[in-house]
Amino acid sequence: MAKNLTSRATDYSKWYNELVIQADLAENSGVRGCMVIKPYGFAIWERMQAELDRMFKETGHQNAYFPLFIPKSYFSKEASHVDGFAKECAVVTHYRLKNDEDGGGIVVDPDARLEEELIVRPTSETIIWDTYRKWIQSYRDLPILVNQWANVVRWEMRTRLFLRTAEFLWQEGHTAHATEAEAIAEAEQMINVYADFVENFMAVPVIKGLKTESERFAGALETYCIEALMQDGKALQAGTSHFLGQNFAKAFDVKFADRDGKLDHVWATSWGVSTRLMGALIMTHSDDNGLVLPPNLAPDQVVIVPIYRNDEQFDAVSEVANKIQSELRAKGLRVKFDKRDTHKPGWKFNEYELKGVPVRIAIGPKDVENGTVEIARRDTLSKEIVQVTDSADHISGLMEEIQTNLYQKAVDARTELTTEVETYDEFKEVLEKKGGFILAHWDGTAETEEQVKNETKATIRCIPMEGDTSPGNCMVTGRPSARKVLFAKAY
Amino acid sequence: MAKNLTSRATDYSKWYNELVIQADLAENSGVRGCMVIKPYGFAIWERMQAELDRMFKETGHQNAYFPLFIPKSYFSKEASHVDGFAKECAVVTHYRLKNDEDGGGIVVDPDARLEEELIVRPTSETIIWDTYRKWIQSYRDLPILVNQWANVVRWEMRTRLFLRTAEFLWQEGHTAHATEAEAIAEAEQMINVYADFVENFMAVPVIKGLKTESERFAGALETYCIEALMQDGKALQAGTSHFLGQNFAKAFDVKFADRDGKLDHVWATSWGVSTRLMGALIMTHSDDNGLVLPPNLAPDQVVIVPIYRNDEQFDAVSEVANKIQSELRAKGLRVKFDKRDTHKPGWKFNEYELKGVPVRIAIGPKDVENGTVEIARRDTLSKEIVQVTDSADHISGLMEEIQTNLYQKAVDARTELTTEVETYDEFKEVLEKKGGFILAHWDGTAETEEQVKNETKATIRCIPMEGDTSPGNCMVTGRPSARKVLFAKAY
Ligand SMILES: [Zn+2]
Ligand SMILES: [Zn+2]
Repeated sequence: MAKNLTSRATDYSKWYNELVIQADLAENSGVRGCMVIKPYGFAIWERMQAELDRMFKETGHQNAYFPLFIPKSYFSKEASHVDGFAKECAVVTHYRLKNDEDGGGIVVDPDARLEEELIVRPTSETIIWDTYRKWIQSYRDLPILVNQWANVVRWEMRTRLFLRTAEFLWQEGHTAHATEAEAIAEAEQMINVYADFVENFMAVPVIKGLKTESERFAGALETYCIEALMQDGKALQAGTSHFLGQNFAKAFDVKFADRDGKLDHVWATSWGVSTRLMGALIMTHSDDNGLVLPPNLAPDQVVIVPIYRNDEQFDAVSEVANKIQSELRAKGLRVKFDKRDTHKPGWKFNEYELKGVPVRIAIGPKDVENGTVEIARRDTLSKEIVQVTDSADHISGLMEEIQTNLYQKAVDARTELTTEVETYDEFKEVLEKKGGFILAHWDGTAETEEQVKNETKATIRCIPMEGDTSPGNCMVTGRPSARKVLFAKAY
Repeated sequence: MAKNLTSRATDYSKWYNELVIQADLAENSGVRGCMVIKPYGFAIWERMQAELDRMFKETGHQNAYFPLFIPKSYFSKEASHVDGFAKECAVVTHYRLKNDEDGGGIVVDPDARLEEELIVRPTSETIIWDTYRKWIQSYRDLPILVNQWANVVRWEMRTRLFLRTAEFLWQEGHTAHATEAEAIAEAEQMINVYADFVENFMAVPVIKGLKTESERFAGALETYCIEALMQDGKALQAGTSHFLGQNFAKAFDVKFADRDGKLDHVWATSWGVSTRLMGALIMTHSDDNGLVLPPNLAPDQVVIVPIYRNDEQFDAVSEVANKIQSELRAKGLRVKFDKRDTHKPGWKFNEYELKGVPVRIAIGPKDVENGTVEIARRDTLSKEIVQVTDSADHISGLMEEIQTNLYQKAVDARTELTTEVETYDEFKEVLEKKGGFILAHWDGTAETEEQVKNETKATIRCIPMEGDTSPGNCMVTGRPSARKVLFAKAY
C-alpha cells in the first residue's frame, strides 16, 4: 500500500492527506468540513486523552460538562471575544422539522423559530463564566479547577483532516482564582503540562513562548503557546494556555468576597489542546513508507507475523509467537499476534509499516530451528536477528529506545531547520530557500509584525520563554529589540 | 444541608430535583433544557464510562467518532426513522453572524444561509451508515463493531436533570454484520452487557425484555431493553439495544460481497445508554438524607473526618488517619482525609452523607487513646467502633458488603412493588394505589396497548425475556395471551 503513497519530497501536503486516509486514521464525511475519526486514529487519540487526563487530575483538576449551545447574546458580553469567535460559527435558528405540505419531503418548520439563536460552541468561556457566577461567592469557593472534554465547531472554509476541521474534539480547561498571581501561575503550569506531554509522550519537541498581542486568544491578556516544527519547515501550534485577567469575570459579573469581605472580580485562565495534535504527531515522525508512532501512543506496540507453508510449520511458529506474546504482555506491552490466514506475510509487513507499529517480529520455520526471531524497527527500518530467549527483554528495551530516538530525530530536524538571522533580506532568503523556524529581532510593534506577515506570510509564532535573550535591533526597522523572537510560516 | 431536603414521602419529584442540586451533581444552564454536569456528578459518570468502555472493548468493540451534524436529507432516507427523530431537533441554518448595521449588536448574517440545513444529531444511524457504505465491500470487512461516546440533542419540551434533557451524553454502538443471526446475537449480547453493568456495577436490578412494536426504536425490527423500577413505583428504561435488520443498509445502499461473490445488504444493530443512568442511580439508592452511592461508583469510597480541639489533638488524630488512609489506598480504595479547618466535623458529616460517600471514619482524641475509630455506613446509617488495627480489613470488606446490600435492597423494593394481576379492574386498582411493575396478560395488539395507555397512563415496558411464560387471556379483551407482560407508568 505504501507503494501508492506520494513521497514527502514530491508533495508534502499530498503525502499528508494520503497518509491520513491510507493509515485508516480519519476521512472526510458527507458533512462539509467535518471528519470521521476512524477506529485506528481514535485509538491513538484515546491514548493522548488518557495521559492528558491523568496529568490534569494530578495537577488538581476535575472534569465537568457544559452545554453545547451558547445563546447569541452571551458572545456580545466580552467585546474582543465576539470579534474572535462569533463570526464563523454554526447557528441554530429552529427546533423542529415537518413534512412539507406540498410533498417536498421534510422542511424546517417556520413556526419553530427560536426566540434567541443558539451558537454551537466554538469555545466555552462565555457559557462557563455564566455558570461560574452561580458557583462563586467567597474566596472559599476558589480556586475552581475544571476541565471539559468536548466537541467544538468553527466554520472553517478550507479544511484539512485533523489540522483544520469545522468540528473537532478537544479539552478546554477553565479555572477561576482569587488573585492575579495565582491565575498567571496556573496558565504557566498548564503550558508546562502541555510541553511535558507533547515532548515526553508524543516525542514532539516544542518551543514554549508568549504570543504577541495580535496573535492572542480573543479575550486574553496573555497567551502562552507551544510551537512545534513539521518536517516541511512549517510551524504548528500544538497547545495554548491563556491568562484571561478579569475580562470574563467582568463580562459575566463574577465577584467573590475575600477574607476581609471585600468584593472583587475573579481571575481566570483557559487552556486547550485538540485533535490537531494528531496532525502534529503524524507530520513530525512519519516517513515515505507511512505512519511512524512513538511506542507511548501506538495502539499496538508490537506485532508478530508468522511465516509458514503448512499447518505443521504454523503450529511450530505459533508456539514461539504465543510464548513471546505472553512474555511481552506480562511486561505491560500491547502486542498483537496476526495469525490471519487471509493475508500473506508481505501484505502484513506493508500494512504494519503503513500503520506505524513500532516493532514487528517475524517468525519462520528457520527461526524456530535456530531459536531466533527477526525483529524490525519501524523508526529506523532496521532488522536484526535475536535469540528467542532474549527477545522479550530486548523488545522491552527497544520501546524506550524508539521513543527516545524519535524525539531526538525530531530535535535534530528542528535544529537543522532553525536559523538565526540579522537582516530582513537574510530573513526573506532563509524563509524562501529553507523555511523552518527563524529567530530574528523585532521592534515589538504590531505594524512591523503585520508588514512581515504581508510581505512574507511568516508570522511571529512566539516570544520564546527560554533561549538567547540578548537585545538587538529590529531586522525591519532597526529600532531596539528586547530579544530575538520566533518567526515561521505556520499551519 | 439534608435538613433542607424534601422527603420522598412528601414529594418524590421535588426530592429528586433538590437532591441533584444539593449533592452537586448537575444544574440547569442558561440554555433551555441543557444541563451543566458538575464535577461531582461528572466523576460518577466517568466511572460509569470507564467500566462500560472496558466491557465494550472486552467484547471486541472499538471507539470512533462521527460528525455532530447530519444533513437534513439523510433523515428522509429511512422512512420510520425520520418520523421518530427528525421532528424535535436543533436545526443549523446559518454559518455566520455579523454586526448589525443598525447597531443592534450581532445578528445572523442572512447571506450565510446553508444550502442544506444541518440537524444536530439526535442519534447517529444515518451519518454512520452513510460512512459504512465506504468501509464495506466484502465479507472480509465485516463485522464492524464500533462505538461512539458523544453528545446528542433532542428538543424536549419538558426537561428534568439527567432524566430528560435537550442535550445529553451517551454512547451509541453501531455494528454491521454479514448475517441476520450474527446481528441478532450482537443485539442480545449488548443488552446482556448492559444488564450486567447496571446490576453488578450500579447495583440496580433490571428486567430484560423486548419492546412491543409501538415502543420500538424508529427503524428497528426488534428493540431489547432493560427496565429498572424507581422507589416511587415508576419504571425507568436504562438501556436499549436494537436489531435494525437491513433497514439502514437499504436506505444507504450498503452491500457486501459474500464468499461466493453474491451481493447482499448488510445487517445492523445499534445500542446505547446515556446520562439518564445517573437518574436511575440516584433514584434507586438514595434516601431522605441525600445521595447513596454504591462503592463501585463513588468518587470517594471512604472519607476520614478528624475531631479535635487543639493542634496536639489534631496531630495525634492525623497520625492515625494517615496510617489508615495509606493502608486503604494500598488496597486500591479511594480515600479522602478531610483535614480542612474551615468546616466543623458536624458540617462534614452532613456533607458526606448528602453526597453519598459509602463509609465515613471519624477519629477523635478518645479514639486515639483507645486505639479505635468510629465507622459509619451510608447505606444503613449504622455506626460501629472498630480497632484501628482491624479497620483497613474491615472497611475493605464493607465495600463488598455495601455494594451487595444496595443491590439486595433494590431487589427487595422491586419485589415489593411488583404485582401480578388477572383482571383490568385489579390492574387499575394496583396502578393507582400501589404503582410499580404490574405483570398482566395482553392480547398482543397495538389497539389494546393504546387503550391501556390512554385509560391508565401505564405502558408496556417490555415483554420479559425471563420469568413466568404461562399463557392466559388478555386482561382487557379476554383474547389469548402468550405470556404476561410488564406494565408500568414510566419516566
Ligand atoms: Zn537491538
Ligand atoms: Zn462491621
